[in-house]
Amino acid sequence: MTKTIAINAGSSSLKWQLYEMPDEVVIAKGLIERIGLKDSRSTVKFNGTSDTQTLDIVDHTQAVTILLEDLKRHGIIEDYDEITGVGHRVVAGGEYFKKSALVTEEVIEQVEELSLLAPLHNPGAAAGIRAFREILPDIVSVVVFDTSFHTTMPRHAYLYPIPQKYYQKYKVRKYGAHGTSHKYVAQEAAKMLGRPLEELKLITAHVGNGVSVTANYHGESMDTSMGFTPLAGPMMGTRSGDIDPAIIPYLIAQDPELKDAADVVDMLNKQSGLLGVSGISSDMRDIEDGLQRHDPNAVLAYNIFIDRLKKFIGQYLAVLNGADAIVFTAGMGENAPMMRQDIIQGLSWFGMEIDPAKNVFGHVGEITTPDSRVKVLVVPTDEELMIARDVEFFKNN
Amino acid sequence: MTKTIAINAGSSSLKWQLYEMPDEVVIAKGLIERIGLKDSRSTVKFNGTSDTQTLDIVDHTQAVTILLEDLKRHGIIEDYDEITGVGHRVVAGGEYFKKSALVTEEVIEQVEELSLLAPLHNPGAAAGIRAFREILPDIVSVVVFDTSFHTTMPRHAYLYPIPQKYYQKYKVRKYGAHGTSHKYVAQEAAKMLGRPLEELKLITAHVGNGVSVTANYHGESMDTSMGFTPLAGPMMGTRSGDIDPAIIPYLIAQDPELKDAADVVDMLNKQSGLLGVSGISSDMRDIEDGLQRHDPNAVLAYNIFIDRLKKFIGQYLAVLNGADAIVFTAGMGENAPMMRQDIIQGLSWFGMEIDPAKNVFGHVGEITTPDSRVKVLVVPTDEELMIARDVEFFKNN
Repeated sequence: MTKTIAINAGSSSLKWQLYEMPDEVVIAKGLIERIGLKDSRSTVKFNGTSDTQTLDIVDHTQAVTILLEDLKRHGIIEDYDEITGVGHRVVAGGEYFKKSALVTEEVIEQVEELSLLAPLHNPGAAAGIRAFREILPDIVSVVVFDTSFHTTMPRHAYLYPIPQKYYQKYKVRKYGAHGTSHKYVAQEAAKMLGRPLEELKLITAHVGNGVSVTANYHGESMDTSMGFTPLAGPMMGTRSGDIDPAIIPYLIAQDPELKDAADVVDMLNKQSGLLGVSGISSDMRDIEDGLQRHDPNAVLAYNIFIDRLKKFIGQYLAVLNGADAIVFTAGMGENAPMMRQDIIQGLSWFGMEIDPAKNVFGHVGEITTPDSRVKVLVVPTDEELMIARDVEFFKNN
Repeated sequence: MTKTIAINAGSSSLKWQLYEMPDEVVIAKGLIERIGLKDSRSTVKFNGTSDTQTLDIVDHTQAVTILLEDLKRHGIIEDYDEITGVGHRVVAGGEYFKKSALVTEEVIEQVEELSLLAPLHNPGAAAGIRAFREILPDIVSVVVFDTSFHTTMPRHAYLYPIPQKYYQKYKVRKYGAHGTSHKYVAQEAAKMLGRPLEELKLITAHVGNGVSVTANYHGESMDTSMGFTPLAGPMMGTRSGDIDPAIIPYLIAQDPELKDAADVVDMLNKQSGLLGVSGISSDMRDIEDGLQRHDPNAVLAYNIFIDRLKKFIGQYLAVLNGADAIVFTAGMGENAPMMRQDIIQGLSWFGMEIDPAKNVFGHVGEITTPDSRVKVLVVPTDEELMIARDVEFFKNN
């Protein structure tokens, strides 16, 4: 038995989950917030308890030291060397990383170089990788990319209909995101369906605060809704998803508060989506409360959300020329039965029929009737477990 | 019998078509180019002949005078008062115009006001309307809007997932385009299918240099792919269609040739699409020649084109929860059987099956097998005839 830690580091945060492997048992998990700021916080959860301490953490290296000391202090580990592997989530792997990779200095430099494509995410991830490498230099260290799963997309899907020089010179193409989640839930869905993934056509809908939909053909990503950045696709919690690009220069010309394209895209990323339309919240639970109150803005936000997500399912039914199952996962995908119902009942022509007895809060697995031509599944995602599994693979190979 | 002229005026051009009504017979048609520039040209086609004269035309009023004099000179009319109606195509009708309208001073002012939404189109159209009003003040004059047909879209389709203030203050919403064409071919498709339009679910694909797809439910537009501007939607001749909006600030930061968002959108409108990817041409005939030569850029442009258009058909199958027929129209839609075949054969799961004997150049009507669950039709569009019909309606009411 060995321990593996899965790390998801941002610019000022570090989420972690400690596994006993190969049993895939979570022993503890936690979050360090406000790294580099005053009053940083480190929270450790284990054995049903939660402990938070507030202190000043200047950088990721100190954050990792505190995390490891926390583990010892709580008796979760006796010695650092019980941890034999670490896996780091990285948002942008560009075209370098078609799968997870062992960390080397070259790999870290590539992750840093790819910060151009994910300026809010890759620098923090690189800092986390360097911190673990400094403190635990001898353990198996692996990078797991959000984009790797989507590197199987065909060129006609990942290239934009723009002059090719923008791809050749500036790497503008669709990279997608949430790849670890899409890959995981497709594997789980195949198990639930009792059929080999290599025979299935699946549409996986990761519906969290970020929303992305993937067309999975025989286990491979053929297309996905996030694009060059995670702004693209259906409506999300605070993100608009796709809009007519010509709106950007128009709004700059009209609205004195929006000075340039970066301003508009910032608004599209942070002030739009459910939050922007409803004026209430980016959280579907609050929107559903608004529906109860017949709040017209909540109703509108909800209806746009359903419309845009349904359209992506339609798109990927066309891409795959049909599907065996639609898979819902992540926060809303797992926990919003009404949303699932409102999408699927608009697709009855395609042979999908929700079973209301199964489509309830907390249900995992099929939610369609036995004779539904296309199955609909709810599959909880587990990106951390996928990271731990990738580390395990490198430990054994 | 009376004569009606249909006008499509741009900033420096004026296309016209003269009808004998109510017989709907085209007597003559023509084009005046380079209005306001040196060496303007006026072309008149009638009775199988074509006559072009070059002269300097300073404005739209002079253009209309020359057009009418041309008609007399060629003996097409003996006197101006044979023309009892004129219909003007206007690109942007905004939210004012839910249908065609009789021209009044107020209407012209509204068309001018809407230039904000169609700066390249509405000012020319307004100039054409004013010119006819000056020279033939007493005839029935009607404006026909590209957007009117789409004013039936539900709010969740036409509003973007962005803060509502941008709609309330700056009118940012989906307006769509090609409405006259989508309306016309839906009517014709219903006749061909021998069923009332009010019972049908149709997806109409106007595939010309501009490409737009409309979800038609019982005769009304429920959704359409063009958006706030005609840039949105699938890939087009020179337009990108939808892309991740975050590409705009990224390219401005990377490429010194692109100074601001207006520059990028100009590139997306004029240098992208089939032209941008292939580096060859915006014309599908040239792309098809490239396929024959196995030109890899032509193959790529073609594959992206098929992919994006197929995805919109999938989207609107989801919006309509199925369809009775897919309708192809306009330049490519009517004249590119291979493109139609390559789209439809990827949709066999939906119950569409092309009949290769019917899907040939020049064929009009059904191109699917008799037991195809969803029919596919080729219907030549005729926007000018729709304009003439709208004028006829006002003459009689």
